[in-house]
This record gives sequence, C-alpha cells and structure tokens, in this order.
Amino acid sequence: MKRVSHQVATIAILTALLSFASTARTADPLPSWNDGAARRSIVAFVERVTREGSPDFVPVAERIATFDNDGTLWAEQPIYFQVMFMADRVKALAPHHPEWTTKEPFASLLKGDLAGLTAGGEAGVAELIAVTHSGMTTEEFSRIVSDWIAKAKHPKSGRPLTEMVYQPMRELLDYLRSSGFKTYIVSGGGIEFMRPWTERVYGIPPEQVVGSTGAHQYEIRGGQPVLVKLPLLVLNDDKEGKPVGIQRHIGRRPIAAFGNSDGDLQMLQWTCIADGPRFCLYVHHTDAAREWAYGRESHIGKLDKGLDEAKARGWTVVSIKDDWRKVFAYQ
Amino acid sequence: MKRVSHQVATIAILTALLSFASTARTADPLPSWNDGAARRSIVAFVERVTREGSPDFVPVAERIATFDNDGTLWAEQPIYFQVMFMADRVKALAPHHPEWTTKEPFASLLKGDLAGLTAGGEAGVAELIAVTHSGMTTEEFSRIVSDWIAKAKHPKSGRPLTEMVYQPMRELLDYLRSSGFKTYIVSGGGIEFMRPWTERVYGIPPEQVVGSTGAHQYEIRGGQPVLVKLPLLVLNDDKEGKPVGIQRHIGRRPIAAFGNSDGDLQMLQWTCIADGPRFCLYVHHTDAAREWAYGRESHIGKLDKGLDEAKARGWTVVSIKDDWRKVFAYQ
Repeated sequence: MKRVSHQVATIAILTALLSFASTARTADPLPSWNDGAARRSIVAFVERVTREGSPDFVPVAERIATFDNDGTLWAEQPIYFQVMFMADRVKALAPHHPEWTTKEPFASLLKGDLAGLTAGGEAGVAELIAVTHSGMTTEEFSRIVSDWIAKAKHPKSGRPLTEMVYQPMRELLDYLRSSGFKTYIVSGGGIEFMRPWTERVYGIPPEQVVGSTGAHQYEIRGGQPVLVKLPLLVLNDDKEGKPVGIQRHIGRRPIAAFGNSDGDLQMLQWTCIADGPRFCLYVHHTDAAREWAYGRESHIGKLDKGLDEAKARGWTVVSIKDDWRKVFAYQ
Repeated sequence: MKRVSHQVATIAILTALLSFASTARTADPLPSWNDGAARRSIVAFVERVTREGSPDFVPVAERIATFDNDGTLWAEQPIYFQVMFMADRVKALAPHHPEWTTKEPFASLLKGDLAGLTAGGEAGVAELIAVTHSGMTTEEFSRIVSDWIAKAKHPKSGRPLTEMVYQPMRELLDYLRSSGFKTYIVSGGGIEFMRPWTERVYGIPPEQVVGSTGAHQYEIRGGQPVLVKLPLLVLNDDKEGKPVGIQRHIGRRPIAAFGNSDGDLQMLQWTCIADGPRFCLYVHHTDAAREWAYGRESHIGKLDKGLDEAKARGWTVVSIKDDWRKVFAYQ
C-alpha cells in the first residue's frame, strides 16, 4: 500500500504540473495589447495556422516570421541608434585623427551634430561607416558593440537603449515562438551591430539575425584565425534587399512579416503576395506622448507607400496610440 | 479503488515509456562505424560537451556543427554532381542555342565529355554557370533542381544521386542532433542547388544550408513578387570563403567541423584553433573497392595540406576503408 500511496502522490504532482501548464497556455500572451482589431487579427492568424486539421494549418518547419528592427522592435528616434554608435566611435577614435576636426562628416559629429551626418555627402557616409565598422576583427567589433550598448543611454528618456524596445512586440515574439514560429530579424541595420545583443534582448540568436552585411577577409594572425571586417557591402538589407536577405539566409518564404516603414514594403510584399495563409503588419508611429508620431513625411522611418499598400491589401496596421496599452516596459 | 487501479495503469504506461526512452538512448547511435579511434574520438567529444557539470560542457545554443557536402556527406566522383546537373541543363537548353555545338565548353558537354568542362577556360565555366544557374526565378530554379534530382542516376552505381550519401555520416548527423547540436552544411556547391533536397536527405533545413551564393534581383512580375537569379557571385563558399560563409549565416564559431579536402581546411582551422572544446574531422577517401581512393594528388577533393595539418593538430582522420562498416545504405 505504501507503494500505491507513493504512486498516488506522483499522480498528484503530475496532475498539478499538467494543470499549471494548461493555465499557462490560456494566460493572456499579449497583455500590453489593447483588445482591438490589430490584436485580434494576430491571434486569429496564429490560431488558424497552428490548429491541427485546420485547412490553413502550417507545419512548424514553415512557420517563419521576419521582423524589421529599427522602429519595429525598438525605437528609431531622434535618429537610428546605430548612428549614435558611429558618433561615439568617431569621438573615441578622434585623438588618432586630428584631420577630422575640419573634415566632414567627422567635424559635425565631433561637435555633437548628429544631423550633420550627411554633411560630407554619400562618400562621407561611406567613409564614416568604413572607419567605424571595418579594419578590426569580428571578435573585436563584437566586443566594441557589447561595451558600447552596455553604457549607451537614449538622449530623450535617459534609459539604456536596450530598454527602448517595444514591450508589445517582445510579447508578440514570445507568443509566436510559443506557437512554433522561428523568429528572425531582417533589418537595414548592420548584422554584426545587432548580433551581440539580440539574443538577450529579443530571444533571437545570432543565426536568426539578417542585416546589412560587410565583406570579410580570413587571415591567420599570430597563429590564430581571424576574420577582418572590410569596408565593402555585400548586402544592403533594405527595401529590395530584404527579400534578397531572406532568400540568402533563410531560403524559404516567411508566412508572417512585421515592419514600420517603406523600407519594409518589399519584405511584406514577398511574404504576403503569395498563396497560403499569410500575415503582414505595419507598426504606425502615432503616439507623440508615449513615443513619437511620424510617418508619411518623416526622414527616418518614412511610411507612405507602405501605408497605402497595407490598406489596399488588408494588412494589419497597428496604431501605437490606440493598440498598445504600454509602449516601453519601463513606462 | 477503481480510480487507484487506473492510476497504477497510468504509472505502468509512464514507466514503460521512460524505460523505452532510456533504451533508445543507449542503443548504438553509430552502427555503420567500426569501433576504432575515429569513432571513439567522436563519442568522447560529444559526451564531454553534453555532460552537465563537465568542465567542457557547452550550452545547447552553442552546439554548432558544420559539414562540407561534396565528398563529406555524399560522393563527389567521378565528378561533382552539380557538374552533372550543369551538363544535363546544357543538353535540355541546347535546342534554343544552335551555336553551342561549336562553342566550348558547351560543345564538349553536349558530346558527353564532362572532363571538357574547362575547355573554354575560366570565362567558359562562368558562362556555363550563368546559363544554367541564372536568368530564372528562385522558385523556377528550385523546381528544375527537384525534377532533376528525382531522376538523376550515378554513372557508376546506377543509383539515384541521393542514395550516394554516406550512411555513417547520416548517422553522425542524427547522433549530433539528438545530442542538442544544430547541424549546418557549409559547401562550395550552390546554396540553391542543395536546399531543395537537404531536408529530406540529411534532415538539414534550408536555413541551415550555407553554400556558394549568387546575387538576386527583386521584381514584381504580373503582380507577383519574384527573385530573379543573377550571374554574379556574392559568396564563393570554398577555402577562405567557408569561415566567411559561417560568419555571415551563423554568426558564431562552430565547435565541430567536418570536411574531406583542402577546400575545407580554413573551416576546420576557424573551428578548431580556438579556446574551449573543439572537434575537427577529415574524411579520407581510402576505399577503392566500396567507394574511391584519392587524396593528395586528386583534382577533385584534393586532401594534401589538410592531411598534414590534421596530423600536426591531432584532428580526427577517418579512413573510409578502416573506419566505416558500410559506406552507402544500399550496399
């Protein structure tokens, strides 16, 4: 009888665990989303493709979801955070480059004028990227980014940049992953600028980050193999480059895609103008109080053609002001 | 009491399941490998990095293993299978190109002379790749490859090419995956030539295939977005290109790498000349009876510098003749 009691106790524990698991499953996966059309369209899509026996069921292997980063997963105002990184690198390297005090765009950046980034024209921007993003090994660059992002603060909120991520989107990433999706970043930002922190901040590992990519040179230095970063772009992962990046890295078409600007339009077209169940979503920045309000006229994150196409094709458009209960976790 | 019996029955089922799972775990994972030094080095490494509490324990996320394809996972004699594909495509397209009957390397290929592939020099090979691997959409190319590989037979064995895969390596892929590894192909072959069949044949999904990669152009054709394949290489995934491909696609250093030729040497260096537990293995083709015997002097799959470096660094060298009980599953 003692043995049976033991087994009964085991059963009780198992039952408790099962019941906990089932509660966890039914808890609200998107607590920072208001109960509006946007949220309902997300849940309806996920239920449609994950319900066994549903005509729209999609096997786990094909549940690929791609997310833009700047303006979609974290903020991009008053300027792309990677530009702040470049400005800080220019300041750090300036003592070795006295000529920068009079040479654009370095001179503007050193005076703290981030908007002067384009003062030296396209060649200036290319040189800026070259000196801040090449010449070092991949491991050195990864360390530089990690050290920087551990300290960098947002100029408006004063918060670490990694706290400028959208809490509703973080919940959405978790919700999709718990529904069998593989989540990818597909960003115009630098692939090696994102990889050092995306796993910790978004739960997205380096191999699921697609971004603008530079060339590398393989060398043996002091007996150790290294990859040196070269000032030559092999993928400009923006606009038409996004479907290209998806094809190179993933090799299958996503069934869901999330963006916030015209730079994401081709990714959304590639994802949603296709057979089978598909889901495309634009985040529209409509909340000047809790975040920023911009779109059709903006230099950063311009959303114009994309907004028209979203309406024409019935894609989901999130209005931050109306659809998000909370924008940043710290609020 | 009825309820308790029911619970006891449940326990019995659970116990049976657990016992089955434990038997499955202890069954030989590498039945086609002889019990020699090569096999023992593999098992010792896997146990070392997967045993919790071991000083060499590696978290699942970092268990990345990369495999060359030609000559490592499937055969590459008498010529790379992708060259057979090109020759068959030239034959299929020849009716639209009467000029090919006198123009090299097309003329040689049309006469069935695969060795005449290089008859037109480097420009000829480039043109050959261009006409067989570009000009169509990614979806069209995927269909062409799938149709071809469903029918193509090996000239010596008469078997479908997908049966020319090494059974011991297939077992090794399964063994690593069941030990928490993510397995990747990193091949000089075309990425889009491999992706249509690697999931079925090796259990490796498209997003874990790295290979030589061409450029794409995004277009909307008849209202449908397409990616058109362009005759321009953005990654030559051979030699120094292999660590570069690994960095672009995976973004972390593998802890295990498997190759068979000097073209894999840089991948093995990048993997194994680094801190922490590492495993590198060369397949040496030593079996003229069951497969082929070649190496230091071969045009295809030359293994010369790599063999020296493997000996110097203590990497595992598999002798097919001695280490593999079976080479192909059909034997």
